[in-house]
Amino acid sequence: MARPTPLSGFPELLPQERYVEQHVVATLARVFELHGFANIETRAVEPVEQLLSKGETSKEVYVLRRLQAEGAAEDAGLGLHFDLTVPFARYVLEHAGKLEFPFRRYQIQKAWRGERPQEGRYREFNQADIDVVARDELPFHADVEVARVMAEALSALPLPALTLRVNNRKLIEGFYRGIGAPDPAAVITIIDKLDKLPAAEVAAQLQADAGLSDVQTKQCLALAEISADDTSFVERVRALGVEHELLETGLAELAAVVEGCAAGVGDRFTVTASLSLARGLDYYTGTVFEIYMDGYEHLKSVGGGGRYDALASDGKTTYPGVGISFGVSRTLVPLLARGELGADRVVPSAVLVALPAEESRADSDAVAQRLRARGIPTEVAAAAQKYGKQIRYAERRGIPYVWFPATEDSRHEVKDIRSGEQVEADPDGWRPPAADLRPRVVSGFDATSSTADPTDAPDQEE
Amino acid sequence: MARPTPLSGFPELLPQERYVEQHVVATLARVFELHGFANIETRAVEPVEQLLSKGETSKEVYVLRRLQAEGAAEDAGLGLHFDLTVPFARYVLEHAGKLEFPFRRYQIQKAWRGERPQEGRYREFNQADIDVVARDELPFHADVEVARVMAEALSALPLPALTLRVNNRKLIEGFYRGIGAPDPAAVITIIDKLDKLPAAEVAAQLQADAGLSDVQTKQCLALAEISADDTSFVERVRALGVEHELLETGLAELAAVVEGCAAGVGDRFTVTASLSLARGLDYYTGTVFEIYMDGYEHLKSVGGGGRYDALASDGKTTYPGVGISFGVSRTLVPLLARGELGADRVVPSAVLVALPAEESRADSDAVAQRLRARGIPTEVAAAAQKYGKQIRYAERRGIPYVWFPATEDSRHEVKDIRSGEQVEADPDGWRPPAADLRPRVVSGFDATSSTADPTDAPDQEE
Repeated sequence: MARPTPLSGFPELLPQERYVEQHVVATLARVFELHGFANIETRAVEPVEQLLSKGETSKEVYVLRRLQAEGAAEDAGLGLHFDLTVPFARYVLEHAGKLEFPFRRYQIQKAWRGERPQEGRYREFNQADIDVVARDELPFHADVEVARVMAEALSALPLPALTLRVNNRKLIEGFYRGIGAPDPAAVITIIDKLDKLPAAEVAAQLQADAGLSDVQTKQCLALAEISADDTSFVERVRALGVEHELLETGLAELAAVVEGCAAGVGDRFTVTASLSLARGLDYYTGTVFEIYMDGYEHLKSVGGGGRYDALASDGKTTYPGVGISFGVSRTLVPLLARGELGADRVVPSAVLVALPAEESRADSDAVAQRLRARGIPTEVAAAAQKYGKQIRYAERRGIPYVWFPATEDSRHEVKDIRSGEQVEADPDGWRPPAADLRPRVVSGFDATSSTADPTDAPDQEE
Repeated sequence: MARPTPLSGFPELLPQERYVEQHVVATLARVFELHGFANIETRAVEPVEQLLSKGETSKEVYVLRRLQAEGAAEDAGLGLHFDLTVPFARYVLEHAGKLEFPFRRYQIQKAWRGERPQEGRYREFNQADIDVVARDELPFHADVEVARVMAEALSALPLPALTLRVNNRKLIEGFYRGIGAPDPAAVITIIDKLDKLPAAEVAAQLQADAGLSDVQTKQCLALAEISADDTSFVERVRALGVEHELLETGLAELAAVVEGCAAGVGDRFTVTASLSLARGLDYYTGTVFEIYMDGYEHLKSVGGGGRYDALASDGKTTYPGVGISFGVSRTLVPLLARGELGADRVVPSAVLVALPAEESRADSDAVAQRLRARGIPTEVAAAAQKYGKQIRYAERRGIPYVWFPATEDSRHEVKDIRSGEQVEADPDGWRPPAADLRPRVVSGFDATSSTADPTDAPDQEE
């Protein structure tokens, strides 16, 4: 086999990069579980007609074919999922009889889209979703909850500052109805283009395609201009003088989400009421979310979600839901590629046990096993080279400590190869400082939470 | 959407079942990392010609096609990987310049095979692999290491007793050469059928197809009958009176693996030298492994592996390797389906904070947040029902504690809903017993390791 070349759109991580992803995934999982969200995984495939019924042909579905299949195979018509929402909706319907509702779940899995690869957009990517789904009715406080949980989880990550933009479809639809727009849905579709088109062009479309007057158009654009990191947006909307019951409901809901996220997120995480956010027309019926990463606005949103009044339905029962999805690959792969994120080791080992001679491998193994018994990741040198070479072996891997086993003439000693300090040590007693126990994520971005280490035992933090 | 039906061969787990899988995966990862193995993931797809070049058409490769692709798409000719070895070999070649050798990695990922589904055989399945790969030369002690690490990891799992069967291709090939077999490779292929065919039938084939005499045939069958949980097999092989240099090397290697695994594995894990084990002809050149689960022999092997002298090669450099793969889905899905394994909760929450009235949701949220700040997974009741109903809400989910927030007339109280005991408690001080902090895996099989809980912080075990 000649040396293979990378496959465009299918990013693969080196061990030290993968460690960063493991850290991020573990941190997200820890926060989600602290809030009582249960983990599930769904199969990678769904019936193609299900995938396409979401009107998402743009998602470029990958269809499967069995190489050996003859005739109508059982698994004909399957495709790889392009998100975690379609499979989750199917999972809820399929397993409804065995689930407890409201069902609060998180899911961190890969998805596949055959779209044109570019920075932040991959054909295979990892994402993390949380959703709350209920039978028949889902109280509004679930919207606040998913926003708060995702905000808390994301603010614990070693990433650039993030912004969770929030809006509410009831608010904007109520406003458009309040000004007498003949086709509120058309207005939403056009307003959604504000981040791509100049305002004048959007204004022209609002008049031409949504039938708005000049005054109505100005009101719509004035609404879209409003954004605030607190509930001050409520007064600014009211100042526009539009009245509608749905608008009031939307204002109250949006204010509740913004207020609910205020506590517990650090400086590097902002929750913004952003009244231009529409998030297409699809299935959203209330709260809508999008996540942006500071300095990486060209990636567009790195996450999003919202409230669906009918996430799933089997004809008899309807399952409303609300959720947010975060693009793990979309954020990490660009940051890793640019060297903005990394880890300080290429192996988990905190200690390399040196090997005085090949015949003493059993002794070195025994020392390693005594360290491991106390939770210290340890490896034994691969070969009995000169100690200088064994130290460089550790250096190249970022292993901070080299252990020299006792000999007839000497006791056990351990060397911190960064400082050069070497001390006598007991294999059943010595331990490295907690910070050296595992690889560290090296990031220019401070995580606001000191508990970002996924391996911290939260119950023993005191 | 009508209620969907399950897709044969694509098992999906309920939250409490998935918890067991999470526990198993975390336990494996913890042991692998304690031994300094680094984690990687490879993309799900490989070029189809790579997948097929392994001669594994029986693996029923799933080929991908993009629904929207026109003409020669970049990703034409891709298929889903059917194991983790082919992608790992490609990863090593592709990233060789950026890896440190010997490269010790673990990989826990899904793979896909379009074969006929049956208990233990799925079209989508999760597996866990460890391998050590070197450039040019890999010392034999790596064989002992992967066996020991996998033995230690597996013996920490809440599974039925497992047996790691080990043999050595040099041993059997040397033996066949020593008796003067004209075609040792043919003998290996036929001897490999001993677990499917009666010995008389195998004997007939050895004579007809491998050209063995009656005496040679008896010697081969006598060798294959030898198995031992210790190094006593060496004397039994020697007693057969065959001499060959390769046989001696193989005996020494096999003895080293059996001896190397003796320590650190409990009663429920056995390492057996099994001289009938041949594991096909493919790429194995020395040590070969297979894993079996007691009482589930009908699943055949639930794992396997061995030494490859050329795991990968780019023409200039050869990368020898040795590894073992463990079938996570193959073992867990049958045990979960039979109810032999489960978890005692369907949510991670240890505490449900009750809701006296919808208006006091903020207060209940605040109590929950104080508990979470100390690492206690907590959720708040979904609705302000009567307390009796809220307790049943916790019961249905297996949440052991219900917290009643302070009111004007009462202090904070927490109830263990299993015992009914209710006590005053401080949200900033109370904590549940460590055993209640997370869901517990319920298993009839005792894990031999008391540190099987993946959430233990090994550094704080003392």
